[in-house]
Amino acid sequence: MTLNISSKIKLAVKGEGRESTLIRIGDAVIGGGKVAVIAGPCTVESREQMIEAASAVKAAGASMLRGGAFKPRTLPYSFQGLGLEGLKILAEAREETGLPVVTEVMAPEEVAVVEEYADVLQIGARNAQNYPLLKRVGKAQKPVLLKRGLASTIEEWLSAAEYILHGGNADVVLCERGIRGYGRLTRFTLDLAAVPIVKEVSHLPVVVDPSHSTGVRSLVKPMSKAAVAAGADGLIVEVHPHPDEALCDGAQSLRPRDFETLMDELGPVARSVGRGL
Amino acid sequence: MTLNISSKIKLAVKGEGRESTLIRIGDAVIGGGKVAVIAGPCTVESREQMIEAASAVKAAGASMLRGGAFKPRTLPYSFQGLGLEGLKILAEAREETGLPVVTEVMAPEEVAVVEEYADVLQIGARNAQNYPLLKRVGKAQKPVLLKRGLASTIEEWLSAAEYILHGGNADVVLCERGIRGYGRLTRFTLDLAAVPIVKEVSHLPVVVDPSHSTGVRSLVKPMSKAAVAAGADGLIVEVHPHPDEALCDGAQSLRPRDFETLMDELGPVARSVGRGL
Amino acid sequence: MTLNISSKIKLAVKGEGRESTLIRIGDAVIGGGKVAVIAGPCTVESREQMIEAASAVKAAGASMLRGGAFKPRTLPYSFQGLGLEGLKILAEAREETGLPVVTEVMAPEEVAVVEEYADVLQIGARNAQNYPLLKRVGKAQKPVLLKRGLASTIEEWLSAAEYILHGGNADVVLCERGIRGYGRLTRFTLDLAAVPIVKEVSHLPVVVDPSHSTGVRSLVKPMSKAAVAAGADGLIVEVHPHPDEALCDGAQSLRPRDFETLMDELGPVARSVGRGL
Amino acid sequence: MTLNISSKIKLAVKGEGRESTLIRIGDAVIGGGKVAVIAGPCTVESREQMIEAASAVKAAGASMLRGGAFKPRTLPYSFQGLGLEGLKILAEAREETGLPVVTEVMAPEEVAVVEEYADVLQIGARNAQNYPLLKRVGKAQKPVLLKRGLASTIEEWLSAAEYILHGGNADVVLCERGIRGYGRLTRFTLDLAAVPIVKEVSHLPVVVDPSHSTGVRSLVKPMSKAAVAAGADGLIVEVHPHPDEALCDGAQSLRPRDFETLMDELGPVARSVGRGL
Repeated sequence: MTLNISSKIKLAVKGEGRESTLIRIGDAVIGGGKVAVIAGPCTVESREQMIEAASAVKAAGASMLRGGAFKPRTLPYSFQGLGLEGLKILAEAREETGLPVVTEVMAPEEVAVVEEYADVLQIGARNAQNYPLLKRVGKAQKPVLLKRGLASTIEEWLSAAEYILHGGNADVVLCERGIRGYGRLTRFTLDLAAVPIVKEVSHLPVVVDPSHSTGVRSLVKPMSKAAVAAGADGLIVEVHPHPDEALCDGAQSLRPRDFETLMDELGPVARSVGRGL
Repeated sequence: MTLNISSKIKLAVKGEGRESTLIRIGDAVIGGGKVAVIAGPCTVESREQMIEAASAVKAAGASMLRGGAFKPRTLPYSFQGLGLEGLKILAEAREETGLPVVTEVMAPEEVAVVEEYADVLQIGARNAQNYPLLKRVGKAQKPVLLKRGLASTIEEWLSAAEYILHGGNADVVLCERGIRGYGRLTRFTLDLAAVPIVKEVSHLPVVVDPSHSTGVRSLVKPMSKAAVAAGADGLIVEVHPHPDEALCDGAQSLRPRDFETLMDELGPVARSVGRGL
Repeated sequence: MTLNISSKIKLAVKGEGRESTLIRIGDAVIGGGKVAVIAGPCTVESREQMIEAASAVKAAGASMLRGGAFKPRTLPYSFQGLGLEGLKILAEAREETGLPVVTEVMAPEEVAVVEEYADVLQIGARNAQNYPLLKRVGKAQKPVLLKRGLASTIEEWLSAAEYILHGGNADVVLCERGIRGYGRLTRFTLDLAAVPIVKEVSHLPVVVDPSHSTGVRSLVKPMSKAAVAAGADGLIVEVHPHPDEALCDGAQSLRPRDFETLMDELGPVARSVGRGL
Repeated sequence: MTLNISSKIKLAVKGEGRESTLIRIGDAVIGGGKVAVIAGPCTVESREQMIEAASAVKAAGASMLRGGAFKPRTLPYSFQGLGLEGLKILAEAREETGLPVVTEVMAPEEVAVVEEYADVLQIGARNAQNYPLLKRVGKAQKPVLLKRGLASTIEEWLSAAEYILHGGNADVVLCERGIRGYGRLTRFTLDLAAVPIVKEVSHLPVVVDPSHSTGVRSLVKPMSKAAVAAGADGLIVEVHPHPDEALCDGAQSLRPRDFETLMDELGPVARSVGRGL
């Protein structure tokens, strides 16, 4: 087999001088010689929690910060995020640490406010084919981290990116976050072959989420290493100062000391494939 | 095995006097003794096409009309639907035939205008976990037809309904439309067991889409019969006056005469399970 | 989409005068105007249990008897079946009721003995691509009921049938028994669209197993009706006189009175699609 | 989530002094500090082809040789392997290179002869739940390389190993070879998270097949690196001296020079996770 992608996808594929797109966000770069590590809690819960998490991941060498203010939750009764207050806390965490901030945006009418506070707009897996939202972030002034849909094919994922690129926003980072599978031991099936496939057919950088994909803390480290070895341009990892008290996803969140170990062990792997951290 | 549904789902499940919800839309009822058949083209292409389709499905005994004005298309280059003009054409088709109209809404800010023209708001599979949109239609004054997500579990689908019910809109129709599978011969895998599962655990009516799920015209009739025999409260079927010229989904659209045959053959199946058409 | 099957499959597809194969087994026929219902326990546990089950399903109108003597169990510690003794009990049950017997064969070297006692050789889902076994039953003198593999495509399933037909045994019944899916509420995903697909491209009869596919007793009746409405040539249903005491699959086995109700309700569905029971 | 494995699995899990099993095959060891690389063609086609392949992989640093003599082919019309002649050629290739030989066995009655010529008996994915075969290799005198079934869960895979261990054969190597998925660009979905899961719950070594899982030559190198970074104890890679002329799987086979590059680049990755080649 060879990797034949639909010729209807024009902008997300390599060609016409596009071989590899670098995305600069503050001091961070995604897509270059260094593996970018985005880290932080699933959800912004409080100023204290967020600053503690941000300081910890900064100290361990993360290049960007993650945290959810608008949260897509399966049930209406679950904590839905702090919203605007969460955005302000994220901006404060950026002030404290210098780390650029990635956070999710869920609706077209929220883009303006999220864009005001965040450095990268995340489109979550459940909105991966929410076309009005994709069109809207295609008009945004900030880069977009586009998660793969829960059951998107590679072509559907690139087609979603196409909406953003076609809208005029050239800064799209793809994110493999696991796809629906029949396994019972992990939340999703991490499809790491998507990484070299994307690198072969697209000029866009691709990062991997080992936390949401597995849902199991002990798998985050080995799958992070595997992602980097497969050629990923970065990782997005959940780190919480006190996972047992986390409002969401505690079971998959690394403790700060686990994250330090991850970063320590990741360096040699990155270098083994010709990159740095 | 028995069907154990998460106890966090409160409103979409049976209980507290909710055994079976009937939804009345004009002269049509979904969830009662009669199987509701919603039919029409994938997309509103023109006044002529829509009126011709509407008249044909009315003549064959359909109880409601379908047609897309706002279309979720995989690529930005594909026809995106007629938008407001399409809504007006749908309203005109309703005037001509008396059939209530179902059409998709894709973004919170479009709900008001869609609601003005349509009788039922459809949430598509790609928006099945678009929570801001679900919250917004939870405040709408019209019933909602909620398609199952491309890879939603039954619990995730009921949880999506929970958002709408929790918002105050009690009129939710569930729609099984096929889930992602490994098969190459059909677009999706129609999960008909979802029908009796939903009927067992939920009070909401459930309809089946044999057109999008299979993507193959010749499979629409047998899968429609199977859906009714499994206990579905209705069907939503693509019918196009000239499938070969359709702007989308021509290969799975029934011609008007195929639809007549379907309706003729469906009656005995409905009666065999104690229902009518 | 249209149903394009690999042209390398020669014997299992329609053509050269092969439009529809009838398989005669004693007084039963699979593939004709009557829907064949094969019923009985998962496993032959004892003479008493088997005769009781056989008498009950015969009284309710089953056309054939099922029961496992050689059992493919996930773990070596589980009951592996009565083996030869089970075959003898099955033959005795046939004497008592006149119903032909279907039972599984798991290894090439067991084919001779199973063939001596049984009327139909069942190839289980886990052996659906066990080619030495398929070749061996291709030389057998008895019809073969070939279950679809746990994750077989339609083409792989037909290709498995091709091995048997190519070996010289023309009597193959296909059996859809559910495929692996991500759902948590059922054991497998019953892929009923496989029924009209097989009927369209192949001359072989196809039956459906609503018991193993769902693993849930309450789903057996609706999915049986759906299978017949979709055009299935028969059903294979688990019935146990005392499901709570069953050595395997009790949770999905019908009680004799449930099976009677199923047969009563199935008649009208069969007639609604132009067939009888 | 934590990794809860059924307590019915006794021998394939860690415990009672079993933390990590080393399997010695000639000079090769699977499960220790060195990553074992098993390489060779899909099928033994001729003496010349096999010796050429064996010499090439030996020169590049492979630790074992693979090649199929009995081939499980989807259709009866495809080349079925050279059988006994193939086994003899494999033995000759071992003489020439000193590399131990892994080859598939498909039926219980073939085990004795395969065991006579081969060093490791491979159970293919399509026989992963062929229990008579698993029982038979449980009595064999040679180690077994047990591929995961096409749609096996981790527990079903460990349970298959349990059959072999329970039979008395303690030398089982697990092999992740991709599972069925909905993707169209690769043959299967390589489930690399299976590697750290197996390492966490089982004492058995686990190797990865990047060739069959992806079916795409250009993906073999990145996925091999990812597998090693994830903690795999080895790889099994298809290498053919002239892939364009291969009787099977040419599109995924590495040329000898590609394999050399793979080995060169794999060393640093292995060392980055504390192992050697």
